Amino acid sequence: MPAPFTTLDEFRATLATAPAADETARAGAETRNGQLTKPPGALGRLEDIAIWYGAWRSTDRPEINNPQVIVFAGNHGVCAQGVSAFPPEVTVQMVANFEHGGAAINQLSKAFGARMDVHALSLDTPTADFTTGPAMSEDEVIAALRTGWDAVDQSADLLVTGEMGIGNTTSAAAIATALFGGDAADWTGRGTGVDDAGLARKIDVVTRGLAANPEAASDPLQALRCLGGRELAAMAGAIAAARAYSIPVILDGFICTAAAATLAQAQDGALDHTVAGHQSAEGAHAALLAKIGKEPLLQLGLRLGEGSGAALAIGILKGAVACHSGMATFAEAGVAAG
Amino acid sequence: MPAPFTTLDEFRATLATAPAADETARAGAETRNGQLTKPPGALGRLEDIAIWYGAWRSTDRPEINNPQVIVFAGNHGVCAQGVSAFPPEVTVQMVANFEHGGAAINQLSKAFGARMDVHALSLDTPTADFTTGPAMSEDEVIAALRTGWDAVDQSADLLVTGEMGIGNTTSAAAIATALFGGDAADWTGRGTGVDDAGLARKIDVVTRGLAANPEAASDPLQALRCLGGRELAAMAGAIAAARAYSIPVILDGFICTAAAATLAQAQDGALDHTVAGHQSAEGAHAALLAKIGKEPLLQLGLRLGEGSGAALAIGILKGAVACHSGMATFAEAGVAAG
Repeated sequence: MPAPFTTLDEFRATLATAPAADETARAGAETRNGQLTKPPGALGRLEDIAIWYGAWRSTDRPEINNPQVIVFAGNHGVCAQGVSAFPPEVTVQMVANFEHGGAAINQLSKAFGARMDVHALSLDTPTADFTTGPAMSEDEVIAALRTGWDAVDQSADLLVTGEMGIGNTTSAAAIATALFGGDAADWTGRGTGVDDAGLARKIDVVTRGLAANPEAASDPLQALRCLGGRELAAMAGAIAAARAYSIPVILDGFICTAAAATLAQAQDGALDHTVAGHQSAEGAHAALLAKIGKEPLLQLGLRLGEGSGAALAIGILKGAVACHSGMATFAEAGVAAG
Repeated sequence: MPAPFTTLDEFRATLATAPAADETARAGAETRNGQLTKPPGALGRLEDIAIWYGAWRSTDRPEINNPQVIVFAGNHGVCAQGVSAFPPEVTVQMVANFEHGGAAINQLSKAFGARMDVHALSLDTPTADFTTGPAMSEDEVIAALRTGWDAVDQSADLLVTGEMGIGNTTSAAAIATALFGGDAADWTGRGTGVDDAGLARKIDVVTRGLAANPEAASDPLQALRCLGGRELAAMAGAIAAARAYSIPVILDGFICTAAAATLAQAQDGALDHTVAGHQSAEGAHAALLAKIGKEPLLQLGLRLGEGSGAALAIGILKGAVACHSGMATFAEAGVAAG
């Protein structure tokens, strides 16, 4: 079905009316977990993940057969402020790289059996420079949210949303500052690798962006519109669509998490169908994950975006679900329980 | 080729003459890594893993197509001391479960495309109770080392060694104490889940085992013989064989790491072809990994053994190598470098 909203308030309403997990399936999965041929708790977090996944898929014995990875790309007017180590042309060049199969996310999607889609959002028309006013109009943010929503395959059983957009760690830092307060310096990092002067410029840009967009501090979805980018809004739309379809989501790094956090701040529990795939090396990601109450599955020093860390975590979820649904019970195997 | 040793001293000699990594391949892989379409270092530890793996496989562009998982099972005379929450009959029951495909390691091997083999080592003849003298004679430990060595498929390109053996966390704790000193309590944990009284019994058993086997403290391979079990010796033999064949190894949890540590203490660099797949929830595993200088790839609270944590990490290695060898370079993709 097409995205069921044409205004931010209608989008907000989809969050408020989103389905919950299936508590009967959760209880069944918990019971099954206790019967499997292993000491209680010996599979650690794999057990929790499998039960959580089963609850969202409404079965005590789930499978993961059809993961989808979607990479959204956008360009940022704030690049004019010199916030990135790379020129903005790299966004469109990397989209071509995604389409030709040459990027990290292509290899990881293939390695973990995921379908991968790429959506470039109006790359020729960057968002407005948010140091002078809102990055997007309501029509623009709605268009991006709808692109994200419509990109989700209803038959997928797991979703990863990734992004590409030169300048977008600055956008994510501004959103995090608007959502959770503190100084811009608390939420701003080196992105693709700016030097000390570049970092100072980013912090200044975030500070000025907050001042230029007072409505961002009072409404999380306005923070997404005023400080975000099209690819961030598209990720938020896709994560909301996945909830509507009861498709679990693996969150990626700092930018994906900032986009997702706007949903959690707009509606309690809006990220209950998500897990944090990894903790990025981007400075503030750990703090951002703590704010939304998510413990990362992986901590391997990645800071690439594209959905790469989340795609790597598809393997962890597949392993967890394979154990849960494939293992014999003590009774089936004739093994003495402890 | 069959195992090229029939005494512990001959086994020791295989460690001393083992091949090194290919430094030309390593340099080539490092060069390639610097040309891939990502900011420098943005794939974090995945970059280090891919370069390390290439160096051991003698290519700057490696692939992982044929991982092997081997589970070794043994029984322990020390079970008579009441050190486990499970009865020793569970070892043979779990071997049947492995053979019928019902255990966690079966599901994980399948999920990550690994061949899985099971070797039960003289389950009807437990090792001697090490609180009264050596667990194994030299002939017995050599037989187990040879079983492990011969179990490795020379055409494998990645190896995981796992174990099953009721009582074997006690054996591993005794080995760790012999190798690295400190009190038995520093190295002894709850295994499959013993209570406080059980933990106190285990600590007492380890203390008495050290006292009854003074040669264990002066020679790491004697520690393996006197305090180990057949499945621990078999893992050590398999890890040594993998080195002879330049097959990288993913270490599993506490018991696998204790067995591997006997090699590292017997010969500097004997574990250079290995990575730590995960940090187990078994209490002393973190300290043991620190002693052998390995940082775990995963920390997900697993404490099952069987090779389960290492098998889960196959996905991380596959992802790392897929990115390294499959990504386009900046020149190939026409992307501007930063």
